[in-house]
Amino acid sequence: MSQETAPTIRRFHGDYRWDATDLLAYKEEGSVPFKAITRQTLFRDPNMAGELRYFEVAPGGYSTLERHEHMHGVLILRGRGQCLVGDQVQAIETHDLVTVPPWSWHQFRAAPDAPLGFLCMVNVERDKPCLPTEAERQALEADPAIAAFLNGSVAYDGARQS
Amino acid sequence: MSQETAPTIRRFHGDYRWDATDLLAYKEEGSVPFKAITRQTLFRDPNMAGELRYFEVAPGGYSTLERHEHMHGVLILRGRGQCLVGDQVQAIETHDLVTVPPWSWHQFRAAPDAPLGFLCMVNVERDKPCLPTEAERQALEADPAIAAFLNGSVAYDGARQS
Repeated sequence: MSQETAPTIRRFHGDYRWDATDLLAYKEEGSVPFKAITRQTLFRDPNMAGELRYFEVAPGGYSTLERHEHMHGVLILRGRGQCLVGDQVQAIETHDLVTVPPWSWHQFRAAPDAPLGFLCMVNVERDKPCLPTEAERQALEADPAIAAFLNGSVAYDGARQS
Repeated sequence: MSQETAPTIRRFHGDYRWDATDLLAYKEEGSVPFKAITRQTLFRDPNMAGELRYFEVAPGGYSTLERHEHMHGVLILRGRGQCLVGDQVQAIETHDLVTVPPWSWHQFRAAPDAPLGFLCMVNVERDKPCLPTEAERQALEADPAIAAFLNGSVAYDGARQS
């Protein structure tokens, strides 16, 4: 979507694509910090201070482990998986809400057998994400639950852990 | 939801309610400009310039006909209905996107036999809505399609009009 105002109505297609909305598939390179994730920007306009994106992680895929000053307001639109926010790993299901506070480490992982599609609201004006240093990653992995999550070796039983 | 940062995870309940999220049911008075609509604020935080709300219109209900400088970015989350945006009446279905540009007249109506639930992103800092004067309403109603929509007498066949 360009910086011009979008068409009034953009139709949804059953495959989680929308009219007049580009799909960005991230390129996976050597040392990939993410896997099997796409982005569509649903709302971005010079008159809006917030931006709404739709991310979709394929079964078994995951988003980049990162943190930044800006916040995320996330609504799971499709499927299920798990997320790390701060020092908590939690199961997430369709229509759950996830708040990522400033400077919280976060990563989203789809279940092995289902995609994870989510809306993410951010400020248009925002800082760039920081990736963990080796020392920061080791500090996170000192918690066995976080280590299992980050290494994709968590036993996924689909049950909520709340 | 208060101005404090929300809990990291707020669970979705099958009835389109969320943990730790208040439901506001608008009070219908004498000359009601809306009917059978509720609001839940899903994300509002001092660190975010955008705000995400969930509105639900019961079958046969409708939102206020209004306009304002600030924009709406809308994603239909549940059900179907019709909307007026500017001078166009269009059918809307689950997951369709609706952009309401600055100063466009707009109203959302649920189908007679289905609710219409939608997410709406707005700027936290925004102007108050204006209601139409009698002359403005008459000007809108000069278009028979808009008149039928505003008076709730449109023949709803569930078919998209795009």
